[in-house]
Amino acid sequence: MFGLMQDRPLLISSLIEHAAAFHPHAEIVSRTVEGPIHRCTYADIRRRAMQVANAMQTLGVRPGDRVGTLAWNGYRHMELYFGVSGMGAVLHTINPRLFPEQIEYIANHAEDQYIFFDVSFTALIEKLAPRMKSVKAFIAMTDRANMPTADIPGLICYEDLIGREPVEYAWPEFDERAASSLCYTSGTTGNPKGVLYSHRSSVLHAFLACSVDGLGLAAAESALVVVPMFHVNAWGMPYAGAMCGAKLVLPGPAMDGKSLYELIRDEGVTLALGVPTVWQMLLQHAERNATDPKRELVLRRVVIGGSSAPRSMCEAFETLMGAFVVHAWGMTEMSPIGTICNLLPKHKRASLEQRLDLQVKQGRGVYGVELKLTDEDGNRLPHDGTTAGHLKVRGPWIANAYFHDDGGSILDDECFFDTGDIATIDLDGYMHITDRAKDVIKSGGEWISSIDLENAAVGMPGVAEAAVIGIAHPKWQERPLLIIVRKPDCPLINKDDVLQYLESQVARWWLPDDVVFIEEMPHTATGKLQKMALRQMFRDYRFPA
Amino acid sequence: MFGLMQDRPLLISSLIEHAAAFHPHAEIVSRTVEGPIHRCTYADIRRRAMQVANAMQTLGVRPGDRVGTLAWNGYRHMELYFGVSGMGAVLHTINPRLFPEQIEYIANHAEDQYIFFDVSFTALIEKLAPRMKSVKAFIAMTDRANMPTADIPGLICYEDLIGREPVEYAWPEFDERAASSLCYTSGTTGNPKGVLYSHRSSVLHAFLACSVDGLGLAAAESALVVVPMFHVNAWGMPYAGAMCGAKLVLPGPAMDGKSLYELIRDEGVTLALGVPTVWQMLLQHAERNATDPKRELVLRRVVIGGSSAPRSMCEAFETLMGAFVVHAWGMTEMSPIGTICNLLPKHKRASLEQRLDLQVKQGRGVYGVELKLTDEDGNRLPHDGTTAGHLKVRGPWIANAYFHDDGGSILDDECFFDTGDIATIDLDGYMHITDRAKDVIKSGGEWISSIDLENAAVGMPGVAEAAVIGIAHPKWQERPLLIIVRKPDCPLINKDDVLQYLESQVARWWLPDDVVFIEEMPHTATGKLQKMALRQMFRDYRFPA
Repeated sequence: MFGLMQDRPLLISSLIEHAAAFHPHAEIVSRTVEGPIHRCTYADIRRRAMQVANAMQTLGVRPGDRVGTLAWNGYRHMELYFGVSGMGAVLHTINPRLFPEQIEYIANHAEDQYIFFDVSFTALIEKLAPRMKSVKAFIAMTDRANMPTADIPGLICYEDLIGREPVEYAWPEFDERAASSLCYTSGTTGNPKGVLYSHRSSVLHAFLACSVDGLGLAAAESALVVVPMFHVNAWGMPYAGAMCGAKLVLPGPAMDGKSLYELIRDEGVTLALGVPTVWQMLLQHAERNATDPKRELVLRRVVIGGSSAPRSMCEAFETLMGAFVVHAWGMTEMSPIGTICNLLPKHKRASLEQRLDLQVKQGRGVYGVELKLTDEDGNRLPHDGTTAGHLKVRGPWIANAYFHDDGGSILDDECFFDTGDIATIDLDGYMHITDRAKDVIKSGGEWISSIDLENAAVGMPGVAEAAVIGIAHPKWQERPLLIIVRKPDCPLINKDDVLQYLESQVARWWLPDDVVFIEEMPHTATGKLQKMALRQMFRDYRFPA
Repeated sequence: MFGLMQDRPLLISSLIEHAAAFHPHAEIVSRTVEGPIHRCTYADIRRRAMQVANAMQTLGVRPGDRVGTLAWNGYRHMELYFGVSGMGAVLHTINPRLFPEQIEYIANHAEDQYIFFDVSFTALIEKLAPRMKSVKAFIAMTDRANMPTADIPGLICYEDLIGREPVEYAWPEFDERAASSLCYTSGTTGNPKGVLYSHRSSVLHAFLACSVDGLGLAAAESALVVVPMFHVNAWGMPYAGAMCGAKLVLPGPAMDGKSLYELIRDEGVTLALGVPTVWQMLLQHAERNATDPKRELVLRRVVIGGSSAPRSMCEAFETLMGAFVVHAWGMTEMSPIGTICNLLPKHKRASLEQRLDLQVKQGRGVYGVELKLTDEDGNRLPHDGTTAGHLKVRGPWIANAYFHDDGGSILDDECFFDTGDIATIDLDGYMHITDRAKDVIKSGGEWISSIDLENAAVGMPGVAEAAVIGIAHPKWQERPLLIIVRKPDCPLINKDDVLQYLESQVARWWLPDDVVFIEEMPHTATGKLQKMALRQMFRDYRFPA
């Protein structure tokens, strides 16, 4: 027997309709590619998203067609979020930081019909346009006055395109499971794979972002969205912002410390979201240039995701700016939020040290994401805070396959997705990632965390970067090899120095069997360490006898 | 094209699973019918809900079958919320304050298979049992030691029933649109009508309750749930509590001011939810008996719904207890939340007077509830803060029909449900109910709000209760008649006194054409004023010439 409730689909168009009806004056503030700050409201975004939707129809875009973007965080990008998905097409946000060959691969793999781009990417588009086979035209996201001169076939001006369209549009109603947007992983191995989000998953994820124990987005917040709109839909902030009417501050291409600091100050930012790299720049700027950040800013919370929030960063935000770091963990395949490190009532009286011990954990599972730990054979392991296992996830905003079924089946027999991480979960539900499954060192039937070893090593003065890989060992199966890039001003540290330092940091049986020094680590286009390449480099390495 | 997201249904069982996994130690504190305070955790509720589910199967209850309850707010009732709905049956919560004939009607109309009851309702069950035709057995929600002696056929002891069942149960997976629970309106006219909630609507509504701009329920809150679990699922608090791991405090049958005050104090209650009547008792107790409520309590917010929050009550909670009143509006047909009166950033600097002006409004629409105002013919009216129209609502937790299709089609051609209220919506989205559609007085093509007139009249010293009804008028179509119950100590106030008082309160053309005094107002079983009965009383009334 079915309930007798209205059968209303959860559609992305309903988010912007809600915002325009109940938060018409809430602002979207963008630093533009052209330079100046641009201000508009949710009512404006809705009106122009409707023009986008009308333009899509004029261009012959049909429901399910992919429409690409190569763009920074800004109001026009947000208009595309609602206009393209709202009319039933799929917004494919492309990461401009990928290698050009990857961008070409992705656009062709997604069969993008049109590509919208910020004019800072004009040269890139000029170069790639001839090789993007499915693209019918390229739209520069600017007005007539700022149009680039470039050799791009079918180049269209965004403001011209939407300017001639009506400002009214009847959003179609369709199945909430319809595809809404597409984002490719910047995987460290093989070709990028596409994650295809649905309207349902996007709206449910927005509910989470607006929940107190989620990201706590709300009408009273001014949120600086540093996480890029080409990266898992900026953690869903455009959708969540519309759901609750939060003021959104979009930094455009200017990610330097000074630009971000000024936005936080001038726009009364209370909540900021981004990856550790940009926050490092912000903190450095503030330390060097700001006299009294605590007084100058109203920043209360900083959400850090993308990679682990270092303990020192959690502390720096608190002492320097009075802002609490909310550590979050997720993946492109998870829309992205999986866990959030909020505190429990019992932690209210914890010391800063105790609190930081907690804040570096990835956090507790949220409703909508089931977590389990398993051994190699898929048997469940206990959540006791010490047993490490393969971390697997299940829920309505988690992928069940990649686009075009790349990689085939990705779920286990209970329909959980394997994150590829090794983690522990404690009795309060806090999850802590100890390693990537493919990086963990299997030594004598036990696991050694490469991440923990690396973190210990970079704590040593003189170490710029550290990586640990497992090397085959006749007796123990594998043993750790520590690879180090020295800081330029410390050319003399050697193996014995490092091992001596580590002795006080890690268990004795974790100590690397050897330490080698190299000039530079291999990285991906998005700055991730490529352990695959390291393993290739050390393919023939053998431990000293 | 569908998105490639996991097809996980939103089921009530997933809420308690989440709570037990990530908030196992969060408490459910209940004042029992037997007297003592009972403490348990979400992990306990899950374990016993699984025993309930197993017991349902033992009793032969099938998916879709209705299982009734006549019970106060307590942990056993909460176990039934998850156990009965979780196994696929429909939890039918019956309001014990209805007239016995209505309870009999409801149980028969719902075809309840079993009825669980708190022992305080033993006499009622004893009386009604022979007339509840579909009920196979009655289960007293207590242990063996407290079992009542009563002439009830097939009487079962709750603890015996579930005690012999296994504590493990595999929740079935099914369509999220399946019926989960049933609640009858206590309508002022005709027979009560059943609203049949679904798993989907219950989970989506819980997301709203956990959002910052919703009810803001969170793991850090200790929530006193005074709103009964037989009244629209206690505004969804059992579900929302499990979703976020909030501590829940359930007051059982003790609704007096002293009992509630002590619970708030002893359980560190930060958030309390209920109707104005109980809060009046709480405030009176605190005023008379507590020396320093602000210091003694950590109450931060009081959610008031069910009927309008009086301005004086908003002010009293703030000055006496330092608690902010969140005015909310909804209906049984709306699960129930429709609007919530949270403040906007721009109201931060408002004076208390200005803020109270806002707080008495019913609040802004939340994502998930679309509001529209229409004229008599269904044409949309502007949201300008002054135009009053019929308030209609649409969304995934709003009814599309009543159980057994009572009353037939209840949606308009855009699939909106007519709330029966007359309201305005201002430019910031704040909705304010001015009247019930059937009570509004149509005078010369304009509307006079009976509620506003009544509120003005009860502001006069000496007036205990006031009601306004429309009386046919040859020239103006209708004109207001004001009916007053005097306070016992003011037997002498007369028509002229009242009219003179009102002259400074309302527009001249709103002044009632006559004022009459009666001894007592007619009320429903749940304390609502019965205007139907008043109209009947004054059927033959004519205005003085």
